[in-house]
Amino acid sequence: MNQTLEQLKEYLHKMRQYDHVLTLLSWDLSTLTPEKGVETRMSVIKFFSTEAFRLSTADEYGEMLKTLSEPEQFHTLDEPMQLTVKRYLRDYERFKRVPEEFYASYTEVKTRSERAWEKAKRAADFSQFAPHLEKVISMTKEYVHYMEPESGNLSGKNCAAEGTGSSENASRRDSYDVLLDMYEEGIDSATIDRVFGELKEGLLPLLKKIEESGRPDLSALEGTYDIEAQKKAQDMLLSYIGFDKDAGATAESEHPFTTDLCIGDVRLTNHYNESDPISAMFSAIHEGGHAIFGQNIDPAYRDTALEQVNMMGLHESQSRFYENILGRRRSFWVPIYEKLGELLPQFKEIPLDTFCCAVNDVHPSMIRTEADEVTYCLHIILRYELEKAIFRDDVPVDKLSQLWNDKMEELLGVRPQNDAEGILQDMHWSDGSFGYFPSYLLGSMYDGMFLEALEKEMGSVDTILEEGRIREITAWLNRKIHRYGSRYTSAEVLQRVCGKELSAQPLLDYFYKKYAQR
Amino acid sequence: MNQTLEQLKEYLHKMRQYDHVLTLLSWDLSTLTPEKGVETRMSVIKFFSTEAFRLSTADEYGEMLKTLSEPEQFHTLDEPMQLTVKRYLRDYERFKRVPEEFYASYTEVKTRSERAWEKAKRAADFSQFAPHLEKVISMTKEYVHYMEPESGNLSGKNCAAEGTGSSENASRRDSYDVLLDMYEEGIDSATIDRVFGELKEGLLPLLKKIEESGRPDLSALEGTYDIEAQKKAQDMLLSYIGFDKDAGATAESEHPFTTDLCIGDVRLTNHYNESDPISAMFSAIHEGGHAIFGQNIDPAYRDTALEQVNMMGLHESQSRFYENILGRRRSFWVPIYEKLGELLPQFKEIPLDTFCCAVNDVHPSMIRTEADEVTYCLHIILRYELEKAIFRDDVPVDKLSQLWNDKMEELLGVRPQNDAEGILQDMHWSDGSFGYFPSYLLGSMYDGMFLEALEKEMGSVDTILEEGRIREITAWLNRKIHRYGSRYTSAEVLQRVCGKELSAQPLLDYFYKKYAQR
Repeated sequence: MNQTLEQLKEYLHKMRQYDHVLTLLSWDLSTLTPEKGVETRMSVIKFFSTEAFRLSTADEYGEMLKTLSEPEQFHTLDEPMQLTVKRYLRDYERFKRVPEEFYASYTEVKTRSERAWEKAKRAADFSQFAPHLEKVISMTKEYVHYMEPESGNLSGKNCAAEGTGSSENASRRDSYDVLLDMYEEGIDSATIDRVFGELKEGLLPLLKKIEESGRPDLSALEGTYDIEAQKKAQDMLLSYIGFDKDAGATAESEHPFTTDLCIGDVRLTNHYNESDPISAMFSAIHEGGHAIFGQNIDPAYRDTALEQVNMMGLHESQSRFYENILGRRRSFWVPIYEKLGELLPQFKEIPLDTFCCAVNDVHPSMIRTEADEVTYCLHIILRYELEKAIFRDDVPVDKLSQLWNDKMEELLGVRPQNDAEGILQDMHWSDGSFGYFPSYLLGSMYDGMFLEALEKEMGSVDTILEEGRIREITAWLNRKIHRYGSRYTSAEVLQRVCGKELSAQPLLDYFYKKYAQR
Repeated sequence: MNQTLEQLKEYLHKMRQYDHVLTLLSWDLSTLTPEKGVETRMSVIKFFSTEAFRLSTADEYGEMLKTLSEPEQFHTLDEPMQLTVKRYLRDYERFKRVPEEFYASYTEVKTRSERAWEKAKRAADFSQFAPHLEKVISMTKEYVHYMEPESGNLSGKNCAAEGTGSSENASRRDSYDVLLDMYEEGIDSATIDRVFGELKEGLLPLLKKIEESGRPDLSALEGTYDIEAQKKAQDMLLSYIGFDKDAGATAESEHPFTTDLCIGDVRLTNHYNESDPISAMFSAIHEGGHAIFGQNIDPAYRDTALEQVNMMGLHESQSRFYENILGRRRSFWVPIYEKLGELLPQFKEIPLDTFCCAVNDVHPSMIRTEADEVTYCLHIILRYELEKAIFRDDVPVDKLSQLWNDKMEELLGVRPQNDAEGILQDMHWSDGSFGYFPSYLLGSMYDGMFLEALEKEMGSVDTILEEGRIREITAWLNRKIHRYGSRYTSAEVLQRVCGKELSAQPLLDYFYKKYAQR
């Protein structure tokens, strides 16, 4: 028996206990904690975050990882444990370089910034948020610099070309690339530039064409929809797509999200609106896609790095596959539309075709989370370009609001009337999640590729859906993707499932097939 | 500045973080955790319980408490901190004597026993549960012996009389007295024997009289009551009695309970039944009473022992004051009965007098939690007598079921047809909570006394309630009782609020006034 391995397993198990409570503390903060309990809760979260940070940077932990990564030991490990040692040693070495005081103060600054963002958004006033954003940006740059001291602002220049000849410089990375890699392992801005470029080029003419065809009349959907009935519709939809309610739970929160406590307990939230049942329905399908991923990871990966899927592009590909690729098809609704009418009686009066027009109504709009699947791509490209401007070109914060509005006009032909429908709409920057946005669009591109592979193997998705066999699609995704957790990087998953490299073309094909003949 | 005091405060704050997560982990386990997440959750609870146990028995903690309890230091502390040092030093010394392995295995045995109890109750078969109960009883005896090595089974003999003359023996306590004291500091079986005796003597003739007057016709209440509407009625009731929804939350669970995360976050659960809205309404009022206590403790007591009210008799007195003393009066409902009819339309057709007959329908029945306020007392007396038999007379476990049924016949004149409606009905023994049951009845006795004091100061409760001024009663309870948390023992509270010692007479007076003239 390998003693160090046993020690490491015990240590990882201990770290998981802290992950579990931190996840629960945050889940409960977003779903149930009353106003007067928030301050105490935040301090409890801070306490356990610090404990978790200490565990993940403790010398004894580093020693175990280093011992097991030595060749003679490493080769005795099974593949999940090899990957675990490799990834956790990389993380350990990164985090070890971050001073504990810096980490605590960075966490504090982000928390304060989130609150300032909420207020500024309500007031539609970017200037209230700008000083906080400036601080978060500069500390994020510092954070990256701690984690990867060789990285820096390479201002888009070719690093290899300006290298001093030392081998170290060849691996110098741009700060923004470090961030991108944190949310989608293996991705970099060169790749994203390429595929987002392809997509933009293909989308702009398509969008023009769609716009010329005019918008559908959706007045039949107007009305008031009971919230309790919407919740029942959500239960029906979740169970239809394969969410296991014995391994999950649902709740309400300001913004929908999914959270994994363990493989047997994956939870999602939703937000309901009396005048718009469709939004909550598609949020449910989206979050349900995330949750199905989490619920179907191989239980043998428990307490290993493979159980944690931090590859957000891959995760978004699953939520968006259910939401868009499946959920926005007429065939998806054929087997359940009558049932939906029983739960939400207004739908009895709305023809399925009208409903399908509503969920595929493509037109430029201000808010990313309310955008259709086509213009959504441009919302992400805008954010990606702005993040590059922040990290590469050091664009001053007070220029960002105008830059946002100019880009909206350039890409979508509409201009926000205020910051609430412009730069303040998303919370991501307030908590330092720079580099996250591209994941959404990468996810959609993967989906184009997965769809191609799925139809090649199983035939027409529309046929499968119309025949009510959606669970066969879920089983295919389980088998091909979910069970492996984060065993493979997204690029590896694409190779294994589709046999090719990332490309925007399949997603464009999907869009053209669906919208060009309109 | 007292350095040890600062260290202790920091240490207590740290211990509170663990209390907070343990409370949350259990709350969530009872309200939301899905079936497949239960095992992981139980292991997380075990992990953090062990951590918390270690903190509460650490040498450095004991040293701080000992240093601060030395006279020259002790006198520099304020009263809340003096009480904190005194109580926590007592607890420390007790727990320190419990071996960690014993504690872990005791916890494990209780967890397994709870599960066995659930199954046995469903099967109505005590024999399935008996071996677990036997183990829990013997380990509880052992646990008490660790905590207080001088204690033991004194078999009801007069300890002083058989003392060997040493001064130590004078303070020897019966094991069961140690348990009683854990749930209601300062109480012992001699006191309980006295007051329960008084009560039993007064109650039996009253009950006979009530029974002779026959039962009301309650068929008007039969029907199906929408669960969502019942939840709205609960919200109305909670807000009416003074529950602060910005400092609390509500959820559903198998059995109603209240839990305190912190003063600003006190939560309660309920369980709804479509055919019985009254049960959930009175559970809401009951748990609301507990919650109002927790929400109104002086925030200056944060992180001290005074914030934790482990005196269950006092706690139950507050829940039962709202539930019974206030909630079962006609005058309580006068200002809100119309509103109730708006939320639950069936109540429009039920005259208030019929409703009041229903909530005061006194008659012997099998199940404690469904009993009226009069026969409820006898349910507790039965459990108290059985617990004494277990701890004093070492009655074998396989005799307990029959003993239960015999006592039911003796006290209430009815005999359970199976163990599910007999000895298996309550979960308390399955998790080792021996000594808890008397708290319920002690609480009711305190209530009799509080009612007397309240009416002396504020005049007729019926007048206050009829005029919709219930919040003045809540304010009185806040001022007299809640704000102090556990600063005073129940006996001290009775002295401060009522100016006298514990007596069953005021509760009997209340019962006789309410029921004897029927």
